[in-house]
Amino acid sequence: MSVRMRGFASYIRLSDALKVVLSNVKQLGSEVVPFDRALNRALAEDIFSKVDVPPFDRSAVDGYAVQAADTFGASELKPAKLHVVGSADIGAATKLSVRRGEAVKIMTGAPMPKGADAAVMVEHTRVEGSRIAVLAPVTPGKNVSARGEDVKAGEVVLERGWQLRPQDIGMLASTGNVRVRVARRPRVAILATGSELREPGTRLKRAEIADINSYSLAAAVASCGGLPRRLGIVPDGPELLKRALLRAIKHDVVLISGGSSVGERDIVPNAVAELGEVLLHGVAIRPGGPTAFGIVKGKPVFALAGFPVSALVAFDMIARPALRRMQGLPADRGYPSILARLTRKVSSTLGRIEVVRVHVRREAGELMADPIRIAGSGILSSMTKANGFVIVPEDVEGFNGGSIVEVELYR
Amino acid sequence: MSVRMRGFASYIRLSDALKVVLSNVKQLGSEVVPFDRALNRALAEDIFSKVDVPPFDRSAVDGYAVQAADTFGASELKPAKLHVVGSADIGAATKLSVRRGEAVKIMTGAPMPKGADAAVMVEHTRVEGSRIAVLAPVTPGKNVSARGEDVKAGEVVLERGWQLRPQDIGMLASTGNVRVRVARRPRVAILATGSELREPGTRLKRAEIADINSYSLAAAVASCGGLPRRLGIVPDGPELLKRALLRAIKHDVVLISGGSSVGERDIVPNAVAELGEVLLHGVAIRPGGPTAFGIVKGKPVFALAGFPVSALVAFDMIARPALRRMQGLPADRGYPSILARLTRKVSSTLGRIEVVRVHVRREAGELMADPIRIAGSGILSSMTKANGFVIVPEDVEGFNGGSIVEVELYR
Repeated sequence: MSVRMRGFASYIRLSDALKVVLSNVKQLGSEVVPFDRALNRALAEDIFSKVDVPPFDRSAVDGYAVQAADTFGASELKPAKLHVVGSADIGAATKLSVRRGEAVKIMTGAPMPKGADAAVMVEHTRVEGSRIAVLAPVTPGKNVSARGEDVKAGEVVLERGWQLRPQDIGMLASTGNVRVRVARRPRVAILATGSELREPGTRLKRAEIADINSYSLAAAVASCGGLPRRLGIVPDGPELLKRALLRAIKHDVVLISGGSSVGERDIVPNAVAELGEVLLHGVAIRPGGPTAFGIVKGKPVFALAGFPVSALVAFDMIARPALRRMQGLPADRGYPSILARLTRKVSSTLGRIEVVRVHVRREAGELMADPIRIAGSGILSSMTKANGFVIVPEDVEGFNGGSIVEVELYR
Repeated sequence: MSVRMRGFASYIRLSDALKVVLSNVKQLGSEVVPFDRALNRALAEDIFSKVDVPPFDRSAVDGYAVQAADTFGASELKPAKLHVVGSADIGAATKLSVRRGEAVKIMTGAPMPKGADAAVMVEHTRVEGSRIAVLAPVTPGKNVSARGEDVKAGEVVLERGWQLRPQDIGMLASTGNVRVRVARRPRVAILATGSELREPGTRLKRAEIADINSYSLAAAVASCGGLPRRLGIVPDGPELLKRALLRAIKHDVVLISGGSSVGERDIVPNAVAELGEVLLHGVAIRPGGPTAFGIVKGKPVFALAGFPVSALVAFDMIARPALRRMQGLPADRGYPSILARLTRKVSSTLGRIEVVRVHVRREAGELMADPIRIAGSGILSSMTKANGFVIVPEDVEGFNGGSIVEVELYR
């Protein structure tokens, strides 16, 4: 009770809070998965190519395999004439070879015949009976995709900690890496505290509200690679909460929303303190200040504020880097960032980071960021109308309209 | 055979190709899903709030509910003294009311008692026995989160075509929209053609190569909301291909890689022409030029080149906007774009779009884009090393080093 109406003992800077959090989470183990199930997963090992790519010299064009020296000096007016001795097909190792004065018709991707060291594009030739006229010279190696030119056997093609995209899946296929070791996804237990909470869609009695946070947080967890597990609403009461917390820590991480603000009975930090250790309580960010972090039986526990915007912003600022670190990804928020021009002044308080939700749009080739006007931490529409956010650092009182600012984009 | 060595009749501009493609695909039907399964799905209906959010007037701070008029003129030196007549809790509809000269202790989120029109932050009060001294004035409405201030019942909170993010899932919870109508995800059949293809991980004989495309394309389809279904490798042969195509068009879309280049036997466009209609063949982009598009029994069929980079780039440029359109999303590529400074000159050919893979990095606060040097369409490492790409339009011959260019980011 005494804490409740007193305010936090101290708000610590976000950078310091992150140091505490990140020094208390570590990368989870790994697992081996088929490469075609690995999209968006983070590699837990360096990937070496098992083969040369391409596995043989092949033509990069439709045309003729030649000895480059035969074409030196060739032009429209003075073409080089070569005998066509056959054609090389895709998918078959040709037995043909190319000697001086000869050419082999070849398709893109077909193996180069022995003796040939270049390919002439069909557009630069003219057929004359069994011969071709080459209308432009090629240098040795021209239009040939050499064995190992993309990747050499034994080369590292993708590094540990890399999050796999479609082209990387292609690279795994190409290099014979059909099973890959990836970081295990953190299993994240989510609890929502508060006797006033009801399941969404329920008809609410006066003073009751819908549980928003456990659903939005579950989605946020999934969107940064975690496996969310909603454990439901915990009515107020220290014993109920402690019991729920002990169930939750069977997962890799616990997120609890509500009950971390000094106005919300402080029950979550108290429960964490009783079962383990509270390492920080109160972070100098807005929204999201009433955030606590602790360890219970070795598992990180994030206590987020009950207001939906506070909970999601604090998740982004503090929990998201931790969940990424646990997967071996860079311990940042992982949102793409752009520069945009603020269309209005935004104000902040010295000593505290302000997370300003903005809507970025293109206007006459320039990116403009409109700060969302209604910005209370209870106003979820401030986040649904936003497509990004601007961070106002602790040491400035805001940004003037017209300033160029960095915007992190929500998708 | 005649087409093969002739080159395409005509390459059409990407913008024209997209017009053809987009006028031949339409939004698929919709389905109703539970809101907590709807992350990343595209809404197929406008979402109206079923309730006021918040559902009642509540305090936005820890402190005291008061009549604002009682605090006018209050200061540290001349505080307003008010009788504390009780306290209002979260989750309970208080029966207390606040009259002139009275205050009710209140916590953040608790319903405002009748009569009170503002809340004073605890930090601006001093307890004096059963009274409080208010040290600063509040205006009516101050620190009160009014019923419906976030969202009013009946208001549209999320629009048709919007792709749902974590905060939007929260908004659905908050507004009682526990089931939502979302666009159906396109089911995309994927075929890889070529007798030279083997499953990844197989020991390759000379002239054989691994099937990369059906895997990288499946991942690309998944990453833009489609449901990929790999139907395997189709060996060369028009009858085999036609049979495979007729099986594939039971899906919503067909992607075929290989066999669309003039050097690759042209079998795919020929098969599409025999079973339906080829609407375009050859797009003025590089890589990815040898792309065809047609309709077979009402289903869009994309024939992409066999080279892995060509296939993926053509997918991004032509198929991705179509798959997004089918889900009711904007018919663009959907990648975030930034401005960055090119570190080297990039060259292009007039009349053709060049898609230049780049690696964007931050240097002294500026974003620098390094063009990837090896850029052949067979060189998949040019895409795995890239984190974005620059589009050089048809009407320029490239960009100079030092130019500021738009980069679309791969993740």
